[in-house]
Amino acid sequence: MSRYFLPHIDRMAGYAPGEQPRDGGFVKLNTNENPYPPSPRVAEAIAGALDGRLRRYPDPVGTAFREVAARLHGVEPGMILAGNGSDDLLTILTRAFAGPGDVVAYPSPSYILYRTLAEIQGARPLEIPFEPDWTLDPDRFARARPRLAFIANPNSPSGTALTPGQLAAIAERLDAPLVVDEAYVDFAEADAVALVADHPNVIVLRTLSKGYSLAGLRIGYLVARPEVVAGLVKVKDSYNCDTLSLVGGAAALADQAYLWKSRGRIIATRTRLVAALREFGYLVPETQANFAWCAGGPPAAATYEALKERKILVRLMRYPGHSDGLRVTVGTDDEVDRFLGALGAIG
Amino acid sequence: MSRYFLPHIDRMAGYAPGEQPRDGGFVKLNTNENPYPPSPRVAEAIAGALDGRLRRYPDPVGTAFREVAARLHGVEPGMILAGNGSDDLLTILTRAFAGPGDVVAYPSPSYILYRTLAEIQGARPLEIPFEPDWTLDPDRFARARPRLAFIANPNSPSGTALTPGQLAAIAERLDAPLVVDEAYVDFAEADAVALVADHPNVIVLRTLSKGYSLAGLRIGYLVARPEVVAGLVKVKDSYNCDTLSLVGGAAALADQAYLWKSRGRIIATRTRLVAALREFGYLVPETQANFAWCAGGPPAAATYEALKERKILVRLMRYPGHSDGLRVTVGTDDEVDRFLGALGAIG
Repeated sequence: MSRYFLPHIDRMAGYAPGEQPRDGGFVKLNTNENPYPPSPRVAEAIAGALDGRLRRYPDPVGTAFREVAARLHGVEPGMILAGNGSDDLLTILTRAFAGPGDVVAYPSPSYILYRTLAEIQGARPLEIPFEPDWTLDPDRFARARPRLAFIANPNSPSGTALTPGQLAAIAERLDAPLVVDEAYVDFAEADAVALVADHPNVIVLRTLSKGYSLAGLRIGYLVARPEVVAGLVKVKDSYNCDTLSLVGGAAALADQAYLWKSRGRIIATRTRLVAALREFGYLVPETQANFAWCAGGPPAAATYEALKERKILVRLMRYPGHSDGLRVTVGTDDEVDRFLGALGAIG
Repeated sequence: MSRYFLPHIDRMAGYAPGEQPRDGGFVKLNTNENPYPPSPRVAEAIAGALDGRLRRYPDPVGTAFREVAARLHGVEPGMILAGNGSDDLLTILTRAFAGPGDVVAYPSPSYILYRTLAEIQGARPLEIPFEPDWTLDPDRFARARPRLAFIANPNSPSGTALTPGQLAAIAERLDAPLVVDEAYVDFAEADAVALVADHPNVIVLRTLSKGYSLAGLRIGYLVARPEVVAGLVKVKDSYNCDTLSLVGGAAALADQAYLWKSRGRIIATRTRLVAALREFGYLVPETQANFAWCAGGPPAAATYEALKERKILVRLMRYPGHSDGLRVTVGTDDEVDRFLGALGAIG
């Protein structure tokens, strides 16, 4: 049967998501999940929707959800497209803009999924290296002449962020859509949504998985020009978001006070975590995300294994041409203390 | 911006799902939703999962869900792949097996989405006409030399079903995966899951949208050889199914007694509906689904409009080379009575 797969699919390794241990007892700092629960309004809203709506198809464009998101960003609802997590939106974007052989450009090191998505599509992944100070050269993007460009901002694994001005400079040089993947923006100082008004090729992606603590619900959205949204609707599955995710997601977006409280706690813990990691000798770039990137210190692979033995999971990341590093999610204060304690014990 | 879309995407019309009226008061017999609520165990299971699991990523392969599905069909869990509705699985299958220019074959008239999926992929949709008795000629499928074939069984809009033997005859002639889309099988006399054992190219698709009354939850699955499932996992989004859909879906599958009760009521109403439609002069093929296909009787478009004025929605279907028809979902006895009353009044 495997001979029926398209050759480029057959050859692919596939994307490996972070470990999700089946047995409990792990301090889990490997997949950037929020350590705090979602707003209690989410469970209330979902419990209230466990009725006749389940047997009906969802609203194909999630009208109520997109209205809440549009209000939040001060844009019209037709500029919002909801997705089954932002991964769904990344897939839709790749299928809409990049055909076989087309160049899909993105920085390196960054979110590994961009490569996988290009590979599934038979497109040509092209990595633009970050400069030593974690900025990007707009000329290098432009010279790649991509049909589609992704920039995770804040970036994973570095946690660093380009300013809206730096993103605008790249968008202006590109004759292609520039997708600014703001998965971690809820922990950052600035966002790029305002760029959409002046740069029709900018598409901003959001997820409720991180800041809103809803990784299990699969809900995200993008902000783009209405004609872009209209084209993407043709590519998405008709009912890509289920009724409960739309209802729960809207409730989460509507509770901004809760988001800001959760964000504040995580940023405070992050400051402490980064300072401690630097004392251990790691080079930790300034992070605007809910994780810290540790490179250039004690050997990463051995540390990863020793932590895992102590039931602490972090993410060991390997990028060709870079030394291995550890990406450590900002957990609760207690989780971070246990992690730091273990790191000290490993020596 | 629209110039950035791939040309074949830009040209596409896109799939138009059935109308979902925003205002209430409609008797809704247009999208084959189940008129009865899902098993009460679904809401219980979901309410019980509104906890710490929401902030965590779902299990990428839905281990608990696939174990329940595997037990139901007497196969190993590695032969089950869960999807965000069966539409998600249809998308994954198309992306895994059909590249640009490749032939994707399916019967006509049938589920219009097969064409859309082939078009998004840049593949070549090829329609194999049903024979006058709603069977299919295996030779016509084989001669098309598809890279991928879909057969909805029972078929929409006809409601007719091929026997497992007839499907096996087609599978044997094809050098390509044959996807048997059993969206409506919960209302039918036989299913094709047993074919997977002897025909490695058969992939059987299921949804919980119809028989299990869970269209709003977006959960479906496929049954295929383990090596097929392993290949498809590379193409799907990592977390394509959310935690609540997996939990609710497993609860629904586990309550077979409820399914059989719901199924029994719908089949009884269907018998009455089909008899009445034939008295109105429609040619209604023997249906094994939760709808009836009305062609060759009173003019379809005018009847559709007149019914809509009376707040009764059915689906007006147009297929090139066929006369228009109405597809009428089997609702509750009361809904069907109101529909038949209105049809008589239009008379």
